[in-house]
Amino acid sequence: MDNTREIEALIELMARLPGLGPRSARRAVLALLKRRGQLMAPLAQAMATVALNARDCTVCGNIGTADICPICADPDRATGEICVVEDVADLWAMERTGAFKGRYHVLGGTLSALDGLGPDELGIPRLVRRVADEGICEVIMALNATVDGQTTAHYIADALTETTVQISSLAQGVPIGGELDYLDDGTIGAALRARRRL
Amino acid sequence: MDNTREIEALIELMARLPGLGPRSARRAVLALLKRRGQLMAPLAQAMATVALNARDCTVCGNIGTADICPICADPDRATGEICVVEDVADLWAMERTGAFKGRYHVLGGTLSALDGLGPDELGIPRLVRRVADEGICEVIMALNATVDGQTTAHYIADALTETTVQISSLAQGVPIGGELDYLDDGTIGAALRARRRL
Repeated sequence: MDNTREIEALIELMARLPGLGPRSARRAVLALLKRRGQLMAPLAQAMATVALNARDCTVCGNIGTADICPICADPDRATGEICVVEDVADLWAMERTGAFKGRYHVLGGTLSALDGLGPDELGIPRLVRRVADEGICEVIMALNATVDGQTTAHYIADALTETTVQISSLAQGVPIGGELDYLDDGTIGAALRARRRL
Repeated sequence: MDNTREIEALIELMARLPGLGPRSARRAVLALLKRRGQLMAPLAQAMATVALNARDCTVCGNIGTADICPICADPDRATGEICVVEDVADLWAMERTGAFKGRYHVLGGTLSALDGLGPDELGIPRLVRRVADEGICEVIMALNATVDGQTTAHYIADALTETTVQISSLAQGVPIGGELDYLDDGTIGAALRARRRL
């Protein structure tokens, strides 16, 4: 192709984003090229600003633009509850529901010997210290319902047995709008075991 | 959501790209946030460079980083052929095949009274001048096989009748790997009318 080098380089970088391949990256760059002033320049500017300012919160591991993220800095959220999530994406998903008013602990992954992710990399000793220091009464495990997520949840629960904190996890069952016919056997079994009186 | 404003602003801008919605834009920004140094900063830099330098070629309408695009500037491509395409994306598609060695004319759309796109906006007078000035012997219409594309092709052919240039268009027929059972009647009819002796 005879595109100039700079445009090619931009397409290659865009193609590394999740959800974009070489073809859709080309399409996205073309759309940007057509709206250089209105979209491309502001996007480049916004990206540079975030790249420069974004950092991990030193308390919970959330990503923000200050050393302490807005959630940890908000005094209204000192409810004595910590929600443990795998990833910032999961924190954002929890926040979208608006159902949780406490603070978070972002692990940044699950325990994995293969990837070199041990308790220290996931900040588990830091979580244990927070439980003591911040007077936490409940730790809610909101890890993914996968083998890795549940293994990590059990490890964290073990690490917290010496404290008096209450440990809970998200309920498992039929999702809202779910049809039994399409659900896997494990989910139906879990929903049956955790049945509630109407 | 409790994200800081700058990250929210970046997600909103990313969501305007074709192929990305609010959800996938969030995913892309998260991936960028996790690789701030290796991916986000270089991408912001590349985008800023292109936004600053990209411009339309004054000869053919292709997008490059100079006033004359690399194709128009390449003396080896002065083959006396001009390929008329709707869009820069179509030019890139033609270039990927490597089958065409001449130069291009990028219309930037099709004739449309509704969108205010007349012959002047599509640079058709400029094309007619080029045909005379550059000693062009063939103009190849590589417009999309849509009603708008074909209407525009016929308009351009009319505008060129006063010159002696030969006008051709891409062949219509069965695509490579195409199965007759899945093709529409119009394509099969066109392929039959344009049949060739084996």
